[in-house]
Amino acid sequence: MISVGIIGGSGYTGKKLLQYCSNHPFIEEITIYGNSTAGQSVLSIFPELLNLIVDQTVKPVSEINENHDVYFVSLPHGESLKYVPALIEKEKSVIDLGGDYRLDNKELYSNWYKFDHSSDYLLNKKIYGLADYSKTNYTDYSLIANPGCYPTSVLLGLLPLIEDYSDEILSVSTVSYSGTSGAGKSPKQELMVSEMHGNVRAYNVNKHRHEPEILQQLKREGFDSPFSFTTHLLPIDTGIYSTSSIHLKSNFTEDEVLQKYKNTFEGKCFIRLRNTPPDLKWVVGTNFCDINISVGDKKIIICSAIDNLIKGASGQAVQNLNKLYGWDEKLGILKFEGDNVEVY
Amino acid sequence: MISVGIIGGSGYTGKKLLQYCSNHPFIEEITIYGNSTAGQSVLSIFPELLNLIVDQTVKPVSEINENHDVYFVSLPHGESLKYVPALIEKEKSVIDLGGDYRLDNKELYSNWYKFDHSSDYLLNKKIYGLADYSKTNYTDYSLIANPGCYPTSVLLGLLPLIEDYSDEILSVSTVSYSGTSGAGKSPKQELMVSEMHGNVRAYNVNKHRHEPEILQQLKREGFDSPFSFTTHLLPIDTGIYSTSSIHLKSNFTEDEVLQKYKNTFEGKCFIRLRNTPPDLKWVVGTNFCDINISVGDKKIIICSAIDNLIKGASGQAVQNLNKLYGWDEKLGILKFEGDNVEVY
Amino acid sequence: MISVGIIGGSGYTGKKLLQYCSNHPFIEEITIYGNSTAGQSVLSIFPELLNLIVDQTVKPVSEINENHDVYFVSLPHGESLKYVPALIEKEKSVIDLGGDYRLDNKELYSNWYKFDHSSDYLLNKKIYGLADYSKTNYTDYSLIANPGCYPTSVLLGLLPLIEDYSDEILSVSTVSYSGTSGAGKSPKQELMVSEMHGNVRAYNVNKHRHEPEILQQLKREGFDSPFSFTTHLLPIDTGIYSTSSIHLKSNFTEDEVLQKYKNTFEGKCFIRLRNTPPDLKWVVGTNFCDINISVGDKKIIICSAIDNLIKGASGQAVQNLNKLYGWDEKLGILKFEGDNVEVY
Amino acid sequence: MISVGIIGGSGYTGKKLLQYCSNHPFIEEITIYGNSTAGQSVLSIFPELLNLIVDQTVKPVSEINENHDVYFVSLPHGESLKYVPALIEKEKSVIDLGGDYRLDNKELYSNWYKFDHSSDYLLNKKIYGLADYSKTNYTDYSLIANPGCYPTSVLLGLLPLIEDYSDEILSVSTVSYSGTSGAGKSPKQELMVSEMHGNVRAYNVNKHRHEPEILQQLKREGFDSPFSFTTHLLPIDTGIYSTSSIHLKSNFTEDEVLQKYKNTFEGKCFIRLRNTPPDLKWVVGTNFCDINISVGDKKIIICSAIDNLIKGASGQAVQNLNKLYGWDEKLGILKFEGDNVEVY
Repeated sequence: MISVGIIGGSGYTGKKLLQYCSNHPFIEEITIYGNSTAGQSVLSIFPELLNLIVDQTVKPVSEINENHDVYFVSLPHGESLKYVPALIEKEKSVIDLGGDYRLDNKELYSNWYKFDHSSDYLLNKKIYGLADYSKTNYTDYSLIANPGCYPTSVLLGLLPLIEDYSDEILSVSTVSYSGTSGAGKSPKQELMVSEMHGNVRAYNVNKHRHEPEILQQLKREGFDSPFSFTTHLLPIDTGIYSTSSIHLKSNFTEDEVLQKYKNTFEGKCFIRLRNTPPDLKWVVGTNFCDINISVGDKKIIICSAIDNLIKGASGQAVQNLNKLYGWDEKLGILKFEGDNVEVY
Repeated sequence: MISVGIIGGSGYTGKKLLQYCSNHPFIEEITIYGNSTAGQSVLSIFPELLNLIVDQTVKPVSEINENHDVYFVSLPHGESLKYVPALIEKEKSVIDLGGDYRLDNKELYSNWYKFDHSSDYLLNKKIYGLADYSKTNYTDYSLIANPGCYPTSVLLGLLPLIEDYSDEILSVSTVSYSGTSGAGKSPKQELMVSEMHGNVRAYNVNKHRHEPEILQQLKREGFDSPFSFTTHLLPIDTGIYSTSSIHLKSNFTEDEVLQKYKNTFEGKCFIRLRNTPPDLKWVVGTNFCDINISVGDKKIIICSAIDNLIKGASGQAVQNLNKLYGWDEKLGILKFEGDNVEVY
Repeated sequence: MISVGIIGGSGYTGKKLLQYCSNHPFIEEITIYGNSTAGQSVLSIFPELLNLIVDQTVKPVSEINENHDVYFVSLPHGESLKYVPALIEKEKSVIDLGGDYRLDNKELYSNWYKFDHSSDYLLNKKIYGLADYSKTNYTDYSLIANPGCYPTSVLLGLLPLIEDYSDEILSVSTVSYSGTSGAGKSPKQELMVSEMHGNVRAYNVNKHRHEPEILQQLKREGFDSPFSFTTHLLPIDTGIYSTSSIHLKSNFTEDEVLQKYKNTFEGKCFIRLRNTPPDLKWVVGTNFCDINISVGDKKIIICSAIDNLIKGASGQAVQNLNKLYGWDEKLGILKFEGDNVEVY
Repeated sequence: MISVGIIGGSGYTGKKLLQYCSNHPFIEEITIYGNSTAGQSVLSIFPELLNLIVDQTVKPVSEINENHDVYFVSLPHGESLKYVPALIEKEKSVIDLGGDYRLDNKELYSNWYKFDHSSDYLLNKKIYGLADYSKTNYTDYSLIANPGCYPTSVLLGLLPLIEDYSDEILSVSTVSYSGTSGAGKSPKQELMVSEMHGNVRAYNVNKHRHEPEILQQLKREGFDSPFSFTTHLLPIDTGIYSTSSIHLKSNFTEDEVLQKYKNTFEGKCFIRLRNTPPDLKWVVGTNFCDINISVGDKKIIICSAIDNLIKGASGQAVQNLNKLYGWDEKLGILKFEGDNVEVY
């Protein structure tokens, strides 16, 4: 049984973390730390959780103590830096849901995040926790950089292909659409119903911070072709739908490509390969990533769908916790034990 | 003053046609013909038009007469074929909003539409009416194939680039999202609110009929690179948002690319070049196409937004009518006469 | 451990029944029977349940057998009549989610449902299973009429008041808004996104079948004042929000009214009394009913919110199953065991 | 030809005012004044209006001059007070879209708006501009209090009944649902898509400022029965749907009630009496108010639908301008001249 601290627990991902941790059979104690919400009761922040969680008062971040085994850090970019190094030094385990340790390279932070990384010595000591794909043994690591929501949806769809066929790829163009909860809980005019109802818009074109994160992981598997990544907002709260268009130098059969995906994801219960493009709704509220591969004439279209707050954040974070302790990845997330956990 | 017949006027595009034609200063008579709705009053089909249009009874298609100058045909694919040849023979003008005459080649109909074209001699006599782009003089034509909704949004965004730079293009990947009204008015389970609320899905991947239509027009301008086109449904009623990702062989400055677009669309009041990605909502309910060009490192992202029922169907059809008669393209559609009809 | 049969399991309530039953610790076997879906696999009907339930083939209703302990009947109105009497005769327990046994009186079926009830001798032998309110001991009953979705939301909000204060009531006017899933899964034009996006409409005004159902239960508690009930559709999939406006003959303090509700619902974990009007979203996906009471000058406004498919159908049905067997009402529905299951 | 000033023109109602005024044949000059947006171009605030209006720079309110004939004031409550008295003194016409002059009584402002009214001598000199109902000749007035959005929808539905039958009424309970644009353009967390998608909530129960406004007008027509008014938010941008439940002392035939409404609204082209409950969507984007009357057993249910920004604000304001000058009420709003402007 372990104790966990959730630093920055009053946003949308914090709420999901709290629910999954409350549900976890091996977590016996949860403490929430916050800034602006310190002193408030958790149920006053999330009234919808009444009768679902045990209430507690949010503690100020100044009172973060060493009594926990694992710390989930769910803070705005540039804020994790203030807490993570000290926790690592005290030999605690840290799962950071922000972007502060995802990139491997100090310069990328200067270029894309516009800050000077103050603990870049940790960048090579972390594990990039793409839970359903990573082949690394987590037990040697104490810092897990939980992947971004967009990268999770894109990478799970692309990596099995890239691994083997990167030489055959002419170009990859990814277009993602996300619900607004990915932009956080702070009020912004452009995210209000009055603006977004019946609406859709591209944003941060050619300059989204998740682009270098995706490219870094693709390159690790040998990718070296042109890549573009364009993000859009949907008039809904939750979910990411990513469509990757891959132009190829030669033709492949659908069978061989599918077999590759089945091999990569064998035994991975949170990956559901689909023979039609998934409905986004199939995954909302779950930790699943649903993927469809459609092979055309020298091209492949890959559609992948996730819940941005769960598979793209808190669900994957708890899955990473399970991997850290060598527990069943499903603990706290999914109870299903049927025999049909297999790819189609 | 002219008389128009609208064949198949009880769907979503029919409603818009009726509104624009009612609004048109040079149309003095409108007759609606229908199949399943014959005998019904137009206001019982569109109760929202009360006090906006003059009511009339829908006539059966068997009673289509020769008294009209122009016929708008708004029928399911494969149905226009039954009426268009006879009308052309009688020297009437026809604006077909369906797909039956958009492609230039009989074989494409066999392959993509799965029917044997019975009047393919007309395919080369039609004009493909991409109203804001076409350089052809309409006055020599009697058959106008009104472009598909997706092709309109995609082509207006791509053609100015293709014209000059087709040799520099490595690949084009287009991803489009559409409101459900593009799928018509017939009830379908997968289009119900209970299924689509909070949802998004790709469909017809690698097999959408608008793909050969787009490619045909791109090739006319010299395009010969890999192309993909993937369509998705949005949980809204109206609007299409198309994002084209173009990988290039070399770098271009944003200035030179933009200048190209400004030149192509000079004086075109329905094209609004934007310096940020447009909101889809900016164009819903209008005949505008809003376009943003973002130039990156050896890549260009083009976002274009239209109302699928107006610019992607009935608005463009009335614009085509205006071009056919040599009238101001704005007649019946837009009253604005300000001096700021210019690109940014 | 028991075996359950679900008759009519391929609609929206069937899906939820399947999930709750799969989750229930004392249900060891579930068989699904259907009409139009017989022969199909459940996962082909609900692909979103992959890795959440064990798959099975839907059996034809002609093969309903006697091997189950309990039968959930989830069929269109007038269809349950064909199966329930035989099951009751065989001393099986039946939980009917349709309307065929909710009313106490044969004439009401002629008037409101327009059919002649063929097994009206059962009407007085059933229990009306308003699970969070009913004071009856279920163990003597074998037929449970699961309440309608609207009546559940309205009655839980009104009954505590009616019990004690019916003499003080001048009039009650209830207005309910529901997501479209309450109208079922069959495609209907007026429920499509193209029609309902950004829309709202009242329907069945002064003639909704849930009106006599509500009134019957109110009268049991002594209500004898004017009542109206008006239903509306929301442009969302799930949830019911009911607002009851009660005009009173004299004034009451908010304290005394609230105390009445606290007494009635003491220990009822699925009822959450709120000190502000609830968000509908707080209850969507749950078996909760959230209620707010606002006392004004000789008037009380009661807002209550439920998930129409769960508390208004399948969640309440499983709760009724638990009551039938004398089990903890939360089994299969809610795991929470905290100490804060109390009213505010 | 007149000149108008729009004070506070950068919100949602300001945008609609600008469009209607730009469209008006007798308005030759429009000047926009603002606070926080002073110095910005109107097209930078409303980029969607490009090619629809002539651009101009918003002037600071400190530069409001006397050159205009009419002033539309579209400011937050309590702000109009600062400008209106001086304008009235200079014998200008003022149409105030805020609440500062709607109530007749200084005390109501203290109680409901929580401010001390500094120019209450104007309260009896204004006309309450319920344009489709008011029987007063506007030409003697210079100050028009444009009705609130909710009151417009409720009063147009109730007043014809109240006029003649107030003695027969036992109680009136009104429930209204509104899109979020009624809450203005300032960012608020509870109005964001992440919070409101799939959501609905009641708010300001028993304390909405539009309650005394409605009651004041009902009382003018003789109403003296219990009344309640409860407001809710919809997960859409635009539109108000009001449902009034009236309990009666005796029975009325539907015919006589309908005849009353037809008489009251004879020749009023913006009122559309409907024989089914209207879709909210029928009126969105228009200046119509659609009304349905359903007569039951000693009760009447009245559903009325409007666009909150048009009929509930700017459309009605321009209609009031037309009445002020004795022009056709449709000018700038509706071009239709058909013969079917009649009630059903």
